[in-house]
Amino acid sequence: MNTPAPKITTGALTGSAKVYLDGALHKLRVPMREISVTGEAPVRVYDSSGPFTDAGTAVEIAKGLGDLRSDWLEARGDVARYKGRAVTAADNGFAEGARLTPAFPLQRDPLRAVEGKAVTQLAFARAGIITPEMEFVAIRENEGRVAAYNRDGDAMGADLPDLVTPEFVRSEIARGRAIIPANINHRELEPMIIGRNFLVKINANIGNSAVTSSMEEEVEKMVWAIRWGADTVMDLSTGRNIHNIRDWIIRNAPVPIGTVPLYQALEKVNGVAEDLTWEVYRDTLIEQAEQGVDYFTIHAGVRLHMIPMTAKRVTGIVSRGGSIMAKWCLHHHRESFLYEHFDEICDIMRAYDVSFSLGDGLRPGSIADANDQAQFAELETLGELTKIAWAKDCQVMIEGPGHVPMHKIKANMDKQLQHCQEAPFYTLGPLTTDIAPGYDHITSAIGAAMIGWFGTAMLCYVTPKEHLGLPDRDDVKIGVITYKLAAHAADLAKGHPGAQIRDDAISRARFEFRWEDQFNLGLDPDTAREMHDETMPKEAHKVAHFCSMCGPKFCSMRISHDIRAEAEKQEGMARMAERFREGGELYLPADVTEPAE
Amino acid sequence: MNTPAPKITTGALTGSAKVYLDGALHKLRVPMREISVTGEAPVRVYDSSGPFTDAGTAVEIAKGLGDLRSDWLEARGDVARYKGRAVTAADNGFAEGARLTPAFPLQRDPLRAVEGKAVTQLAFARAGIITPEMEFVAIRENEGRVAAYNRDGDAMGADLPDLVTPEFVRSEIARGRAIIPANINHRELEPMIIGRNFLVKINANIGNSAVTSSMEEEVEKMVWAIRWGADTVMDLSTGRNIHNIRDWIIRNAPVPIGTVPLYQALEKVNGVAEDLTWEVYRDTLIEQAEQGVDYFTIHAGVRLHMIPMTAKRVTGIVSRGGSIMAKWCLHHHRESFLYEHFDEICDIMRAYDVSFSLGDGLRPGSIADANDQAQFAELETLGELTKIAWAKDCQVMIEGPGHVPMHKIKANMDKQLQHCQEAPFYTLGPLTTDIAPGYDHITSAIGAAMIGWFGTAMLCYVTPKEHLGLPDRDDVKIGVITYKLAAHAADLAKGHPGAQIRDDAISRARFEFRWEDQFNLGLDPDTAREMHDETMPKEAHKVAHFCSMCGPKFCSMRISHDIRAEAEKQEGMARMAERFREGGELYLPADVTEPAE
Repeated sequence: MNTPAPKITTGALTGSAKVYLDGALHKLRVPMREISVTGEAPVRVYDSSGPFTDAGTAVEIAKGLGDLRSDWLEARGDVARYKGRAVTAADNGFAEGARLTPAFPLQRDPLRAVEGKAVTQLAFARAGIITPEMEFVAIRENEGRVAAYNRDGDAMGADLPDLVTPEFVRSEIARGRAIIPANINHRELEPMIIGRNFLVKINANIGNSAVTSSMEEEVEKMVWAIRWGADTVMDLSTGRNIHNIRDWIIRNAPVPIGTVPLYQALEKVNGVAEDLTWEVYRDTLIEQAEQGVDYFTIHAGVRLHMIPMTAKRVTGIVSRGGSIMAKWCLHHHRESFLYEHFDEICDIMRAYDVSFSLGDGLRPGSIADANDQAQFAELETLGELTKIAWAKDCQVMIEGPGHVPMHKIKANMDKQLQHCQEAPFYTLGPLTTDIAPGYDHITSAIGAAMIGWFGTAMLCYVTPKEHLGLPDRDDVKIGVITYKLAAHAADLAKGHPGAQIRDDAISRARFEFRWEDQFNLGLDPDTAREMHDETMPKEAHKVAHFCSMCGPKFCSMRISHDIRAEAEKQEGMARMAERFREGGELYLPADVTEPAE
Repeated sequence: MNTPAPKITTGALTGSAKVYLDGALHKLRVPMREISVTGEAPVRVYDSSGPFTDAGTAVEIAKGLGDLRSDWLEARGDVARYKGRAVTAADNGFAEGARLTPAFPLQRDPLRAVEGKAVTQLAFARAGIITPEMEFVAIRENEGRVAAYNRDGDAMGADLPDLVTPEFVRSEIARGRAIIPANINHRELEPMIIGRNFLVKINANIGNSAVTSSMEEEVEKMVWAIRWGADTVMDLSTGRNIHNIRDWIIRNAPVPIGTVPLYQALEKVNGVAEDLTWEVYRDTLIEQAEQGVDYFTIHAGVRLHMIPMTAKRVTGIVSRGGSIMAKWCLHHHRESFLYEHFDEICDIMRAYDVSFSLGDGLRPGSIADANDQAQFAELETLGELTKIAWAKDCQVMIEGPGHVPMHKIKANMDKQLQHCQEAPFYTLGPLTTDIAPGYDHITSAIGAAMIGWFGTAMLCYVTPKEHLGLPDRDDVKIGVITYKLAAHAADLAKGHPGAQIRDDAISRARFEFRWEDQFNLGLDPDTAREMHDETMPKEAHKVAHFCSMCGPKFCSMRISHDIRAEAEKQEGMARMAERFREGGELYLPADVTEPAE
């Protein structure tokens, strides 16, 4: 092997350690992160970062992650190995020689459902079977809790249980209200669930660079995104080497990997949309399903009659997939092959348990175009396609916008719930204004937090570079943290029974001047520590009972402690409250009147 | 004069030029910023940046800005110059020698109301008088529009007119629903209005550094904040030199300056809260009123009987002013001098037209403490104090939280409207989660946008350094831009009749690949351009009809243009729409069923 040494970020976040919880029904090790806190019990948090943050696990990307699922899959007896499709030069965009990213060293024959079998989590759920994947996510969602911590919140129609049981997971999947994206060929996966009655999830997009084809670099993008909390990662690579790069990513991915197969299909026809065919597309679906992609974005809702509805839009069609399919439909003057072959697509999805992410090809690309006829016409079609997919036992989520001003966000959620019968919604933001290029992670976090509260199950991140350029490492991290905080704000507002544990722990640390705890309990300990040290570099400041921001005279928290001590000394807070409850009438001079209009 | 040469940021933003609109009732020059757009009419936007961004104006901070208001003030005949209070060594924290910031070179006797007169905008409004300040803000609010652009939105009970007239301004002020913070000693002020039926405004906080006392540096902080859009600036300086620094700032400030006089009063008693007296505080109010401070944060709502209500809080009292007053009350076991002397405070405010910003000394400092008894008890008291101030013809706004999860935000607005009878609400965020130190500009922008939509008139910014350290220049800019976008998102959601002009202009630019227009129409052209150039440095890319982010094959906007051309060629969009409306039934296989539960 002359694969160069991988430069992959590993190791725990400061103050954190990986712990594993066992299953009761199945043999499972469910990973969690435990943040140690001075003088208090550690806080357990959801952890999507995989073995890369486990100090006890050596990572070698050329070997890939350990095999978690083969035993589960083979025990079911409904899948079989077969000789998979041969990799062609076109799969890698005809890259050769030094420009060809090496194939992943370990290649195995893929699994596929035995003829006639559905091997999806939906099929099992409907059959009353609690799979290891279902028990895994149930344990994971509880984050080590044994009871509800807080039931405050306005669930907006969601139904969050105090504790998630495996049976609850099963019933939500059976109902179509949640999915576990888990291709049977992604045996490295730590399963996770997407649904409105679970923690709100986030997705990060990555993609290859035009200039490099280093597999370490591409794997590191995924590792970096999950380190900061991405729950799923979409590989939106185009051009050369995408087959081989995808292999490297999936073999090292503890999170579900999503793709837009249309991108690779388009490469195979040299970028000419009109030349796309069902056969090329079908070949790509199978290629990626065999590799282990967990969900496919499929823009089957873009129908021919909807295209003219976009004619008067300010920003036309802004979805890449949507615009490619619209062009194809218009050129051939017929419905798209995605729509016409949807039934056959379902057959492929069900044979590998690839989940649908039904693409919103006609999503609005500006405030002006939000909630228009084209957008909602497509959404209705997605609802109809959902029924077809469900009938085939396929798992489905629905993609949503985009650019939407605040007052139009709720209608998106309401219509999605109605037309798609609570299939999980997966939105991109939405951005709540168009006027802040460079800050669209923030314009969109506003919309994302709101729509997450209203019931969206997964939020696709937006980085500061949106509309401007390709995100670098810092942009990816900022995007992920921004979306983690938006998703958490949504969990709090919904009244998720465990969400406030972390807020309260960090607030106590703040009040007690435990600076290190405050950093470590935050989403980004490194940045918090760095910002603190810019102003107050001395170690002593991290234990002082005030800080040089306000100084001791103006430190409200220090004064609050003084007040408590003083009040307790004087007579006890409770008696004081009583004594001053009537507290004299408000000081009102005689000439008080209402202001005149 | 051996004042060193000022290092003040001047000059227009790229693509922008200052324009001035005339008054009809009064002699006025109302500044606006005009952004030039290729092939379209320029876009006029609200401009709080003052002469510093006017290429035609030379700025010399040692001379201060031009005198805009003296003619207006003196024409009213109800003010008189008098020999003001003498500056004492204590005013500057006993700084001397090289550590003493020089006094502002030009000192004038202050103005004060003639005995018995109220010289507030509220008094004039009630008397049916349309002041130059009122006409100024009316013109300013319209941003050069002559008609409503868009009436989309959900106003949430606000009543935004198509165009703001001077009479509308007067009536809103008379009703107490809006204020123009405009101390009669701030003659450099370009008046602005704060109220729920106007554009949502933002405030930026600045403060002196412990290590420097350069007046250029302190003035530059203000100039930098307003360059990016701060509508008002609060000077929260403490310690040495605060009197002289404040003078330099106000003499160069085109925006209202707010302060918390308690901070300086506390310095005068060497930081010992218990030693504060009404006399020291009163002296400070007069000192700052004579300098021209436009609004004072006054924590008069913290009452003795409320202090025990904070005993079980996770984060106690987090307002500096609130904690100082609580400590005083508890130590002396009596109501605060702010509460007991509120009537006399009103007399001072009315003699100079300093507006009240009634402080929320008991605001929550964590998600756990949001909307608690202490917070709302104080809010009710603020409502009662509002009536007293109004009876004295004083202008009033009300400060609000803080840390509030999304589902509890609306209650804050509703209660404020109810108790304070629509006096403008001025909130700090609120932060919607506690778990993201380093990103609290974002956790709070979510809450700020929402509460702005619900009716908050001004949003106090939060920088990334909140809870961690002192903001530097970059942090201030990020905080201001973040709050500008949140305020704008709120304007859009409310259906402000001009808000969408800018969104639509930037969206058209985006769709037509006019990169320079997209940068210049954004809130931060420099950052947008820089981010674009990181990925696509070549000038040619700024005119290409695609960009290297997606490349020509995947450029949805380029394909959208192709689609339009193709569709028009084929038969015309409208006829196509008709032809495909029925478009064949949806492709449904026979075995479609609803998913089983």
